[in-house]
Amino acid sequence: MDHAATTPVDARVLEAMAPYFSEKYGNASSLHSHGREAKSALEDSRATVAGFLGADPGEIVFTAGGTESNNHALKGVAFANRERGRHIITSPIEHDCVRKSAEWLATQGFEVSVLPVDEHGLVDPAELESIITDDTILVSVMAANNEIGTIQDIPALAGIAHGHGAYFHTDAVQAYGKVPISLSGVDLLSASSHKLYGPKGVGMLFVRRGTRITPLMHGGGHELGRRSGTENVAGIVGFAKATEIASQEMKSEAGRQAKLRDRLIKGILGIPDSALNGHPTKRLPNNVNVWFRYIEGESLVLMLDDAGVGGSTGSACSSHSLEPSHVLTAIGLRPEEAHGSLRLSLGKQNTDAHADRVLDVLPGIVDKLRRMSPLKSRRDVEEMLKYEEAH
Amino acid sequence: MDHAATTPVDARVLEAMAPYFSEKYGNASSLHSHGREAKSALEDSRATVAGFLGADPGEIVFTAGGTESNNHALKGVAFANRERGRHIITSPIEHDCVRKSAEWLATQGFEVSVLPVDEHGLVDPAELESIITDDTILVSVMAANNEIGTIQDIPALAGIAHGHGAYFHTDAVQAYGKVPISLSGVDLLSASSHKLYGPKGVGMLFVRRGTRITPLMHGGGHELGRRSGTENVAGIVGFAKATEIASQEMKSEAGRQAKLRDRLIKGILGIPDSALNGHPTKRLPNNVNVWFRYIEGESLVLMLDDAGVGGSTGSACSSHSLEPSHVLTAIGLRPEEAHGSLRLSLGKQNTDAHADRVLDVLPGIVDKLRRMSPLKSRRDVEEMLKYEEAH
Repeated sequence: MDHAATTPVDARVLEAMAPYFSEKYGNASSLHSHGREAKSALEDSRATVAGFLGADPGEIVFTAGGTESNNHALKGVAFANRERGRHIITSPIEHDCVRKSAEWLATQGFEVSVLPVDEHGLVDPAELESIITDDTILVSVMAANNEIGTIQDIPALAGIAHGHGAYFHTDAVQAYGKVPISLSGVDLLSASSHKLYGPKGVGMLFVRRGTRITPLMHGGGHELGRRSGTENVAGIVGFAKATEIASQEMKSEAGRQAKLRDRLIKGILGIPDSALNGHPTKRLPNNVNVWFRYIEGESLVLMLDDAGVGGSTGSACSSHSLEPSHVLTAIGLRPEEAHGSLRLSLGKQNTDAHADRVLDVLPGIVDKLRRMSPLKSRRDVEEMLKYEEAH
Repeated sequence: MDHAATTPVDARVLEAMAPYFSEKYGNASSLHSHGREAKSALEDSRATVAGFLGADPGEIVFTAGGTESNNHALKGVAFANRERGRHIITSPIEHDCVRKSAEWLATQGFEVSVLPVDEHGLVDPAELESIITDDTILVSVMAANNEIGTIQDIPALAGIAHGHGAYFHTDAVQAYGKVPISLSGVDLLSASSHKLYGPKGVGMLFVRRGTRITPLMHGGGHELGRRSGTENVAGIVGFAKATEIASQEMKSEAGRQAKLRDRLIKGILGIPDSALNGHPTKRLPNNVNVWFRYIEGESLVLMLDDAGVGGSTGSACSSHSLEPSHVLTAIGLRPEEAHGSLRLSLGKQNTDAHADRVLDVLPGIVDKLRRMSPLKSRRDVEEMLKYEEAH
């Protein structure tokens, strides 16, 4: 139940990729027949992804993953539009690759504003309207959050950006293939293959025709000059196949997983001193995120793992960090609450039996951890309160 | 015979990768057992690549390929060392991803000098000594050229860079696994998996401990904070396996291919009005590059393809460009000579029978193209001479 971190490659995807490793292995830029064969597979894949999004094939730039797509969007638009303005707006619950790209741009002469979010992680379009200026060149707000699953009102936010002449980018890594995506008003959109039963190391950046963007990778001029580097044909074919499968199965899977999600949430909230993180309804169909008082999330994940359940405390990327989740603190959790949160993210393999197993073992694990927890001792609670006052 | 463009994935490599798509598919950053299993494969791969180069595992940064590695090296060192100096030195025969990264940096406040090369494509260390200054922060010269195969004296060039406090980077994409590489004096070195019978979409940047470098991809802090993005575990495992195989087979393959290369060169130069491009001895064991007077290389490649021989006019990346090769013009070829060049790059599959086939069909193809060639008509020759005078 950690499908937001990554997913296994679907057998149909692997089958589609297989010929492109050792047989149809050409470089898509080569003039000879091996090259043209690879080029043809590449362009078919581009058409599939474009068709899924309702974009033109020429607007799809294949990348090495979501992190590259997001870095490319932010840095590429910033550097290409420096003469038009220096202001970039983003949100406090973005993935680290958006946040840290923005932070780096702030050291390079750009000004970055961070929108507030409410207790469910929603950005209020009125807040964007109040901070956007004519100097704003880019607004970047994620379609659905990777930790708490909150789904934003992208068309409303994009409309405001456009009203002020700014480009709008959305990180759709967690939304792509799981919920319907509208490109209305969206100039740039990032997606990743391995969140979608495709291979790791492949992603995509939608770049609306006419968008001014500097390459992140300069070189041989692949991808219509927007992303150089020999194309990972096998990976791209796999990503396209995963997209094709998602386009067929998304609706039924979303319904099935949402039911499983709601059953899990209801059951887990039966554990005393727990609460849901994220929005009760504007939520990815596969996301469960709950905090437990007096619990250290890392121990919870390790004990669940021993019981055969894979979960996480938040994003996988940050799982070795001692910092509390920036997403959970942004929605108002105190550091120890953020540390006591559990994310379960469902996937195609998960069944009712898996939910049964979680609901069977989780209450006992929480109880055991609470009995061991130093946070439960009076002295530590007092120290915690002192810490809060001092901060 | 276009192995410099790309190579098929070795069956042993594909076998090593196979479990990491759908079974051991964890995110290497996840805390649970699936994540730890992926992390372990990642670190084993890092140790293999480090061992091959004689580096520490902590000095190996996995990337999405040679283009990313080269962009990262140039831009990363430039941005991180801006306060120390603004001067970057490179050569005119670098791959486009080095050249165009340098050109972009020149628009961002850096000063770029391009070293001359001799008629064989060799950089003279004395030339580097004469243009390097205390403001120089980076010297980047490729280990072996992708078009003409010329091998540089990297230790001599690196020694001069270090004598002036500059970092030294080498693009070893074509050299890695084909000829011995010494890290002596090298601070950064790029390699790519798909040139080495590994999968596309994976590469490596060696970054010597202590080197100041800004990430090209900001985010979750993977690869010790130097390259964010969920690691492409299957791809990295494949790259490591390809490296392991190269470490065992490199010596014997280099000897075998060099013999085949020399036989091809000798045979091809029997065709009238032809000449070898690149150095006669300081040359990759798998590289053949010859120009033919009155020939348009693209037609040559297409006719060879019809005869079952895959070749190229130069780098695959530039194969759809109408510009003459920057490498061939740098070594003194006129535009029409550069356009009339053929690169054959050997690989493990190539045998004497393949060389026989080339030597069998090539003279006839060259002859046929020359009979069709507008360049052979007197008027065109006169126009060509006029063009040369005017330029």
